[in-house]
Amino acid sequence: MQRIDDANRQAMDRILSADPVLVDVIPAAEAIPTLQDRMILHAGPPVDWERMCGPMRGAVAGIAVFEGWAADLQEAEAMAGAGAFDFQPNHHFDAVGPMTGMTTAGQWVMVVENRRFGNRAYCTINEGLGKVMRFGGNDAEVLDRLRWLRDSFGPAMGRALRSGDGVPLKSLVARGLSMGDEMHQRNVACTGLMLRALAPALAATADDTAGLSKALAFIGGNDQFFLNIAMTMGKAIMDPVRGIDGSSLVTAMSRNGTDFGIRVSGTGDTWFTAPVEMPEGLYFPGFTEADANPDMGDSTIVETIGLGGFAMGAAPAVAGFVGAGSASDAANFTRAMGEITYGDNPEWSIPGLDYLGVPTGIDIRLVVETGLAPTINTGIAHREPGIGQVGAGVVRAPMACFEAALQAFAASVGVA
Amino acid sequence: MQRIDDANRQAMDRILSADPVLVDVIPAAEAIPTLQDRMILHAGPPVDWERMCGPMRGAVAGIAVFEGWAADLQEAEAMAGAGAFDFQPNHHFDAVGPMTGMTTAGQWVMVVENRRFGNRAYCTINEGLGKVMRFGGNDAEVLDRLRWLRDSFGPAMGRALRSGDGVPLKSLVARGLSMGDEMHQRNVACTGLMLRALAPALAATADDTAGLSKALAFIGGNDQFFLNIAMTMGKAIMDPVRGIDGSSLVTAMSRNGTDFGIRVSGTGDTWFTAPVEMPEGLYFPGFTEADANPDMGDSTIVETIGLGGFAMGAAPAVAGFVGAGSASDAANFTRAMGEITYGDNPEWSIPGLDYLGVPTGIDIRLVVETGLAPTINTGIAHREPGIGQVGAGVVRAPMACFEAALQAFAASVGVA
Repeated sequence: MQRIDDANRQAMDRILSADPVLVDVIPAAEAIPTLQDRMILHAGPPVDWERMCGPMRGAVAGIAVFEGWAADLQEAEAMAGAGAFDFQPNHHFDAVGPMTGMTTAGQWVMVVENRRFGNRAYCTINEGLGKVMRFGGNDAEVLDRLRWLRDSFGPAMGRALRSGDGVPLKSLVARGLSMGDEMHQRNVACTGLMLRALAPALAATADDTAGLSKALAFIGGNDQFFLNIAMTMGKAIMDPVRGIDGSSLVTAMSRNGTDFGIRVSGTGDTWFTAPVEMPEGLYFPGFTEADANPDMGDSTIVETIGLGGFAMGAAPAVAGFVGAGSASDAANFTRAMGEITYGDNPEWSIPGLDYLGVPTGIDIRLVVETGLAPTINTGIAHREPGIGQVGAGVVRAPMACFEAALQAFAASVGVA
Repeated sequence: MQRIDDANRQAMDRILSADPVLVDVIPAAEAIPTLQDRMILHAGPPVDWERMCGPMRGAVAGIAVFEGWAADLQEAEAMAGAGAFDFQPNHHFDAVGPMTGMTTAGQWVMVVENRRFGNRAYCTINEGLGKVMRFGGNDAEVLDRLRWLRDSFGPAMGRALRSGDGVPLKSLVARGLSMGDEMHQRNVACTGLMLRALAPALAATADDTAGLSKALAFIGGNDQFFLNIAMTMGKAIMDPVRGIDGSSLVTAMSRNGTDFGIRVSGTGDTWFTAPVEMPEGLYFPGFTEADANPDMGDSTIVETIGLGGFAMGAAPAVAGFVGAGSASDAANFTRAMGEITYGDNPEWSIPGLDYLGVPTGIDIRLVVETGLAPTINTGIAHREPGIGQVGAGVVRAPMACFEAALQAFAASVGVA
């Protein structure tokens, strides 16, 4: 249908012409003025306390203590059960968050500006690996790290970014793809490239060398530091693609640990949801599938822009990490995702596949027609609150989301 | 022959069990006490002023001015022609140097210690790209940068390294191979990994944040920063492999821009030389093959340990840069080098080739038998002094070196 082709071409143009730049780190309350006291933004489509999974409940309790709304985790849980907090999806506030995705007024958020369209997107700073709030961790070590991010690291990163013109992300990610990153479960190259870009300004604007040394060690000690930047970039790229009448391209995929939700350009901000699936993956020593929480987080925004599972061919080393077969199998994931996407991104290409562009622009019609659901590379949280990451794996977006979306989309373009 | 097999097994064991660690940056005069005033160490086998190529003459003139031995380049050239300088190969002083490879008492050198065998190797700090002394540059900008490396950057890097236990290089290079580096013409990943390792200590031991910021920007602004570290590592790994009676493995390959030379374990420190070949490559805008100097530098030590052209399969992006065909052709170079090497290095593997180890331990018998000369990824210098880098390409080690070495080796093991 010509109308759909035209709308999808426009949507793809907006994706490919985006110009995302990391420009600042500021308090969330400043970035998102509507983010009020006792409001907690979470990953995925809307979910209330009763339906929240274990790690998200753990993170809610932890962030309430961090914000000073509760004296301890027990009080925080009681308050949550009594309706003291206003739970809202990050996606409704120009934001994204990995795994549990807690965003509250007292945290600092990174700011990515899409200079082509003028919109901004926000995400908290990646905390590191292991026992961290995004995987449901909430003990003193977790909260102390969040305080340091708020009081020291976030302000330092903000000063560094404001001293220059920001860090353009499109070319940095292109480079990362030539260095084995897929920007979801492997961000080691982009983390290094971001450190190279930021370190001189971090030094030039530092208060003291001891704090600076700690900040540089924090970035260098966390191979996933760039993940949250990639996510913010993804949100900044996809937001201008929302609401193009007649477009069947996906603008967001996200999970709250209970439901998986997608949004489609032509159907606006409606979420089409289905129960989340369980990742198939590899577990850290001492953990098994029985410990795993189902799929969670806003991080699937990176697959929505052609990275993560879609760019697996760029990252043969990640295939082993997520249990996706041999290194040379990695290319098959990328090729399969080419079956359900509008086209390739010529600026984000994979040297080892003779510069094939990453498959970009998920078309819900192709997903339903081929029966191929998007492949997602994901971390795996423990199903109980307070424990943290237990593994990493591959998961499929539930087909039911796409079937429901296709029905609504068909109605929106006047097809029975 | 059992004796040769046993000797080669021992040589390979020494290569694979090496434990190279970047431990310090100190004045060359301190690192190499025999490095006297008016002595100039150069790349490759021995060469005198009369037979030196243009860029090496340019570098000699520049370094003489830098050291204060001559007032200007003209005086320096006249002095060189009159025999005022003692020219010696880096390799005779536990050192290596890229391209022209100038090492003199007043420069600072990086120190790599092979903790398995206790030996140390030395190399100057990489100056960056374009008009630099290693490519024959010698103007005020080039000399000013060398002074800054001596007066500020070198001492800062030394302080940082001495504040910790050094940076182990074996695991860092393993990681770099999974990130698209081959450690000769592509060092972007390892440069980032080294920055991550060094930045916290650079900050903690910094005199002032402005100098620190400049140092961090210098590392981050030079994708080839790690090359000289990889070379020092190569020298530290291969030196303990020298002089194993009956071993036919190559311990050094090196070029001075006039001659290519190799050393073989069983024949000790004898150089087997032949005229250097011209690289086939790609040229920077404004330059052509007519501008190119023949092959030059000690950097072929990285091919001697299985990296560079031997690890091309790890770096599909470099294949285009050096004009070695399509990205997917890169694997063929690595597989071909497997025909002339003793074995694979299981700790340095290539994810995209299903974790094939890099081909390691060049056996002169296999080179002559197969007619396959080692593949080298190299930078290309302008043939005139004072200009700098004009391109990058691939070159073969001259077969005549291996034929001459094989004759001497055969005699050493009592074969006619």
